[in-house]
Amino acid sequence: MLHHWHGTLELIRMALAEDEAAYDPTSSLLPDDLASEALMMPKANGVLAGVDVALAVFRELDPALETERLVNDGSPVERGMYVAAIRGRMSSILRAERVALNFAQRMSGVATAVGEFVRAVEGLPAQVIDTRKTLPGWRLLDKYAVRMGGGRNHRMSAGDGILIKDNHIAAMATRGETMTALIQRAKREAAHTIRVEVECDTLDQVREALDAGADIVLFDNMTPDQMREGVALCKGRALTEASGGITLANVRAVAETGVDFLSTGSVTHSAQALDISLEIRVA
Amino acid sequence: MLHHWHGTLELIRMALAEDEAAYDPTSSLLPDDLASEALMMPKANGVLAGVDVALAVFRELDPALETERLVNDGSPVERGMYVAAIRGRMSSILRAERVALNFAQRMSGVATAVGEFVRAVEGLPAQVIDTRKTLPGWRLLDKYAVRMGGGRNHRMSAGDGILIKDNHIAAMATRGETMTALIQRAKREAAHTIRVEVECDTLDQVREALDAGADIVLFDNMTPDQMREGVALCKGRALTEASGGITLANVRAVAETGVDFLSTGSVTHSAQALDISLEIRVA
Amino acid sequence: MLHHWHGTLELIRMALAEDEAAYDPTSSLLPDDLASEALMMPKANGVLAGVDVALAVFRELDPALETERLVNDGSPVERGMYVAAIRGRMSSILRAERVALNFAQRMSGVATAVGEFVRAVEGLPAQVIDTRKTLPGWRLLDKYAVRMGGGRNHRMSAGDGILIKDNHIAAMATRGETMTALIQRAKREAAHTIRVEVECDTLDQVREALDAGADIVLFDNMTPDQMREGVALCKGRALTEASGGITLANVRAVAETGVDFLSTGSVTHSAQALDISLEIRVA
Amino acid sequence: MLHHWHGTLELIRMALAEDEAAYDPTSSLLPDDLASEALMMPKANGVLAGVDVALAVFRELDPALETERLVNDGSPVERGMYVAAIRGRMSSILRAERVALNFAQRMSGVATAVGEFVRAVEGLPAQVIDTRKTLPGWRLLDKYAVRMGGGRNHRMSAGDGILIKDNHIAAMATRGETMTALIQRAKREAAHTIRVEVECDTLDQVREALDAGADIVLFDNMTPDQMREGVALCKGRALTEASGGITLANVRAVAETGVDFLSTGSVTHSAQALDISLEIRVA
Amino acid sequence: MLHHWHGTLELIRMALAEDEAAYDPTSSLLPDDLASEALMMPKANGVLAGVDVALAVFRELDPALETERLVNDGSPVERGMYVAAIRGRMSSILRAERVALNFAQRMSGVATAVGEFVRAVEGLPAQVIDTRKTLPGWRLLDKYAVRMGGGRNHRMSAGDGILIKDNHIAAMATRGETMTALIQRAKREAAHTIRVEVECDTLDQVREALDAGADIVLFDNMTPDQMREGVALCKGRALTEASGGITLANVRAVAETGVDFLSTGSVTHSAQALDISLEIRVA
Amino acid sequence: MLHHWHGTLELIRMALAEDEAAYDPTSSLLPDDLASEALMMPKANGVLAGVDVALAVFRELDPALETERLVNDGSPVERGMYVAAIRGRMSSILRAERVALNFAQRMSGVATAVGEFVRAVEGLPAQVIDTRKTLPGWRLLDKYAVRMGGGRNHRMSAGDGILIKDNHIAAMATRGETMTALIQRAKREAAHTIRVEVECDTLDQVREALDAGADIVLFDNMTPDQMREGVALCKGRALTEASGGITLANVRAVAETGVDFLSTGSVTHSAQALDISLEIRVA
Repeated sequence: MLHHWHGTLELIRMALAEDEAAYDPTSSLLPDDLASEALMMPKANGVLAGVDVALAVFRELDPALETERLVNDGSPVERGMYVAAIRGRMSSILRAERVALNFAQRMSGVATAVGEFVRAVEGLPAQVIDTRKTLPGWRLLDKYAVRMGGGRNHRMSAGDGILIKDNHIAAMATRGETMTALIQRAKREAAHTIRVEVECDTLDQVREALDAGADIVLFDNMTPDQMREGVALCKGRALTEASGGITLANVRAVAETGVDFLSTGSVTHSAQALDISLEIRVA
Repeated sequence: MLHHWHGTLELIRMALAEDEAAYDPTSSLLPDDLASEALMMPKANGVLAGVDVALAVFRELDPALETERLVNDGSPVERGMYVAAIRGRMSSILRAERVALNFAQRMSGVATAVGEFVRAVEGLPAQVIDTRKTLPGWRLLDKYAVRMGGGRNHRMSAGDGILIKDNHIAAMATRGETMTALIQRAKREAAHTIRVEVECDTLDQVREALDAGADIVLFDNMTPDQMREGVALCKGRALTEASGGITLANVRAVAETGVDFLSTGSVTHSAQALDISLEIRVA
Repeated sequence: MLHHWHGTLELIRMALAEDEAAYDPTSSLLPDDLASEALMMPKANGVLAGVDVALAVFRELDPALETERLVNDGSPVERGMYVAAIRGRMSSILRAERVALNFAQRMSGVATAVGEFVRAVEGLPAQVIDTRKTLPGWRLLDKYAVRMGGGRNHRMSAGDGILIKDNHIAAMATRGETMTALIQRAKREAAHTIRVEVECDTLDQVREALDAGADIVLFDNMTPDQMREGVALCKGRALTEASGGITLANVRAVAETGVDFLSTGSVTHSAQALDISLEIRVA
Repeated sequence: MLHHWHGTLELIRMALAEDEAAYDPTSSLLPDDLASEALMMPKANGVLAGVDVALAVFRELDPALETERLVNDGSPVERGMYVAAIRGRMSSILRAERVALNFAQRMSGVATAVGEFVRAVEGLPAQVIDTRKTLPGWRLLDKYAVRMGGGRNHRMSAGDGILIKDNHIAAMATRGETMTALIQRAKREAAHTIRVEVECDTLDQVREALDAGADIVLFDNMTPDQMREGVALCKGRALTEASGGITLANVRAVAETGVDFLSTGSVTHSAQALDISLEIRVA
Repeated sequence: MLHHWHGTLELIRMALAEDEAAYDPTSSLLPDDLASEALMMPKANGVLAGVDVALAVFRELDPALETERLVNDGSPVERGMYVAAIRGRMSSILRAERVALNFAQRMSGVATAVGEFVRAVEGLPAQVIDTRKTLPGWRLLDKYAVRMGGGRNHRMSAGDGILIKDNHIAAMATRGETMTALIQRAKREAAHTIRVEVECDTLDQVREALDAGADIVLFDNMTPDQMREGVALCKGRALTEASGGITLANVRAVAETGVDFLSTGSVTHSAQALDISLEIRVA
Repeated sequence: MLHHWHGTLELIRMALAEDEAAYDPTSSLLPDDLASEALMMPKANGVLAGVDVALAVFRELDPALETERLVNDGSPVERGMYVAAIRGRMSSILRAERVALNFAQRMSGVATAVGEFVRAVEGLPAQVIDTRKTLPGWRLLDKYAVRMGGGRNHRMSAGDGILIKDNHIAAMATRGETMTALIQRAKREAAHTIRVEVECDTLDQVREALDAGADIVLFDNMTPDQMREGVALCKGRALTEASGGITLANVRAVAETGVDFLSTGSVTHSAQALDISLEIRVA
């Protein structure tokens, strides 16, 4: 179940408004008493996500439309399967069609991309996670689609985790505060329920971060060999995450270094939409 | 200049809120009196779009930040160029960084994709246009990015144009209304300032649409040969648009049929983000 | 059916809030368990519009109220007819009464005014259309009321049609661009689904507009004789619209010149409310 | 000074959005660097209101526009006077023009109508007041315009005054509560800072209301003779208000009965717009 | 019945959003098909208020939850009583729990505090009223809770009553306007449905206010003896209100001076929450 | 600096609207050209918080008001100190006064309450933290005020930390999942940047939680002796937090058990407002 209802409803309303779906003079050509059944159908194979959101679009445009989910989010789908049905006033279905499909296509595209990464590391303990490189306004939906694809989420927002990067370290250096001191201060000042993660470019930094008490070490753009050594250093002391330039081609090699988490921004910032269409049957 | 300010501001606020940018406990580790200059810089070649929006994100988070555009939207950019500068409280810059870049990366990605299509048909009269397959909440920004890439916009919303598709025709057929009658009614009922476009799968449909007074004919998934014949039929009677399965690989062939417009959804529904980063210099 | 739900709901909420309808200390004097039936009734003859909106006001204030439309929008009504019924908690009905009637009175007033123009040109092909001189916040409701009165809508917004006026032409003249060039550029740059309309004060301008490819010619404050000549020039080349100073007294004369469209702002900017009251029967 | 900023700004944004003023493809034809001065000018005589709101529309669309009020709200204006100036990017001025004028025309129309009523009772102590028959969403602006026309406001909302009408009395009668008891209860339960006004159709009701302690008596649709007698009864005991069917033709006669307040809904529900236009001078 | 639905719903949504109730990763650990019944139960004695609001929180988070009020707002409650029941998906109940209880605890705390003041003056005619010292965003809920505690409301907003304070008098004195003139002007300019209340520090001021026509006199921080004398002066001429430093310890003494109203800010600005918890029974 | 601007601004607008501050007919009695200086001044000793928010209220009501902070949030203040100044139109200052003070009084009240707890444990390592028992709509402001009082924040929202309570454990027990299994699953499924905290009522539960890998142990309503033993068990394995019934009277005793964190809901759910007033000097 997708619980992130409030923000989602707001986005649905913005999308219907920007498309002037209620005005739509073409759909207005159809008589109000013409009913139909419409079936959502992927036109390519992939992982489904966003069916509930798409159906909510139809009901938001016209509360009298009846909707039925036929396949659950997170399921693998094949070209031509029926994944949802909408019944009621045909002009309403056509008014909402474009916006509803725009949601489902994007979300299924993200889930499908994640699914490919997950399959690529099958059998290894490393987990595929996302980043905060999501589409503005779409954080919750993008993160949900990642889970539907079999991935796990990194921070939902900047609020649920400390992630000290090179810029933070460089900034404090101008004030004479070492990386060690910064990490220790972070542990002291942040809410005790969140961990302190530190981005490291070198193994020396990994050692300093560990000694300062970092809870998680992020290997940024390291080679597999460096990462392997980093993993050994962190064993029993900190969780490890690999990030930067991870692609379908190299993800398994990175996973084999033993890191706990593999984060990839491409699944959200550059996802290919899964083609989904609406087949309409006039009653 | 990007004029679509109101909806954009709303989206910026949603994005900052969903990232808890104002709370961000990592950035809170930096002292309030630490200033810096940050420079936006693409890490790949492409077409720039979204610089003004990204800069608005910084100012929305902290009105005291000073921002400067160095390169205009619509310009080709190369890896490593500085395209914008932000100056002021460093913790504010870091709070807004992720959201600002998420905007610019997506928008430049769309502009870059469009630019490739435009270059592919260089020298031919056909114009590359977009579709309504944009990201929900992002209609105005996606359409703007298309223009920055050198493309032209199709309908901004369902409201500014009649587009009769197979479903509309099938629906009215159940009421005994022919395609001809439907087109004539559309011309009679719609605002006189918008045109009537008709989606045709066959040349027979093209002929019927023309005779009924269609202002624009959309060739849906036709072969180049069919389109060439369709273009000949429409000459002097209606504008022509090709749609369906247009890729970088085949777009020139389609353009050579003589159609007036080439519409592609992929530039918005499946755009690859252009990698853009922030280089920070502590003052 | 009135589809423009989202903006309408927002306006309903603003109206209930500005009237402090939920607080209303007078209605609070009535006990919660006192039920009644209320009947909406025009106190003058006219054309009905806004019944559904008025009923939505009651349900928005108290979702437990039951509402029933007895007469459809767009119907001629006579003083004393019952057009809708509301049943339920009497204090809720009285809280919502003023706002609900304020909607119905305005909308029926607009529809009634349009109906008079439409009757005045009965038998002639010219169509009565509105303008963008609607009440801020009320565009969709005003345009809907115009249709209910038997009129047809001009542009819903500045977005669905190009309308080049004297100011645009004068502006570009300072840059050395002729009216002809401006019209040609408009046709090249605007979405291909919208038409280019040009406001003309003289027949010479009409000729230039036609030669430049204008799709629609607007005769601004011309005499009937000029319009007649303009209509002859445009025949087969462009649609024609008459605008400026059209009143019930002269509208038939203008229509007889053969113009396609007669636009009048008075039906929305200066409509007289149709008096509508609520007759309450305590159960 | 018009202080009701928040709701007004919201209405301005709704109005710009519904007009797609930012998108406006016609204004987009003008180059960004073309500046102009525009002058607001009534095309008929009347009372000015809404200049500040209209100027706020221009600044909301483009904060870089400079605006100057030349005549204050509440002043009598004559055809051709310049009442405000706007300077800056011409395309921005044209984008905002329609919405800005729609505000000023409506508000000046209301003020002008009120001014006529006020002049009609000149020299008499009776004061012209409005009702809650204002346009939904426009309560504060309509009430403000009434003050600018020289009128005084009745209740701003249902919250600031008790007004017991026939329906309230009939409702409580079914529970065996007399009008007297209802009035006394109202005085006991309502906030002590608001008065209790009672609508009376007969002089007997006036007597009962006075005896029960009514603070204000509303003469509803009474003849001037009845009102004169009612005024005598209320003298020193309650304020008096005349309502129902008050027109420019009969308002002086009503005022001469000695009532304290004359309320009229027509000045807001049926106001004629004052024609105001924008004269543009390309710089 | 709590009628102030619109603003309340907005506050509920803000509260659920700021708590990320929909995301809540702890509640996400429970399976979607696990149902439960939860019972709201005060853990201390007091006066109940806010049950309907708390239940609305649960339904807003998950419309499928069923809620039942067992005890009405305004009732005295004892530790351990069940006051409401919620049934349905357990993870939804836990997501909403904190926000729902936060509402009920605050509102019952206000009602309980008011109840103590009301009991303290039992048998005397003086009525306990609140002030505008409510929590920002909570005006309607705070005022509602006051009524549930047996108190009566002072002004709901600055709009429904004139209250001239020392600052207003001092301000006008710099313009040479006396307190008398200011009061007379207030009676002339304000809506005739609201009263004019004047804050007085001395008996001389009381006399001046009465002579100028004040409808209500506010005794600000006067001694009981002064108030007694003030009450005598106002008898038959104006209502009286005591304000400033009224506590449970001295309220009866103040009430015995004969004032009509006792206003206290502490019941809203410093209310102690009534401890309320949720007892959950897994089905 | 208070960074949580967006939600705060929304709350400020709600508060000004619910008070009808812009309309305020009493302040409207003052002439627009009357200027003044106002000084914010506590009337009791305490810790200051909310000055910036209060000043933002004045500027939001009237952007022309000039505001100056004289004392920083987080500073101890004494009765009679000037903490901020506002200069400009006096009627604007009076319109905003009540809302502005309502913010500052509540926030300073929370900070003052926290300050007392912090002083009570001076010299001990335990840190005073808050809970999620904040006022709906006020989460960020309440948490900010806690920091200003010298406290540290617990979870900002349910999203930034896992906190397994008795209800979660009981719920999963019905599915046959042990507390151990639930904790392990939480560590596996939650974002790796947040910790898993477990509420324990007994020392046996503490042992099980530790063995299962809990990152933080919450001692719920334990005696100091139990807590001392719990702290010993957790040493080097988990952070410890004491909660439940912590008051100023017993907080030092609890802190002496050696727990890392002391959480108290009373500082937010039952804070006493710090009395703050506005001293106005007419210019």
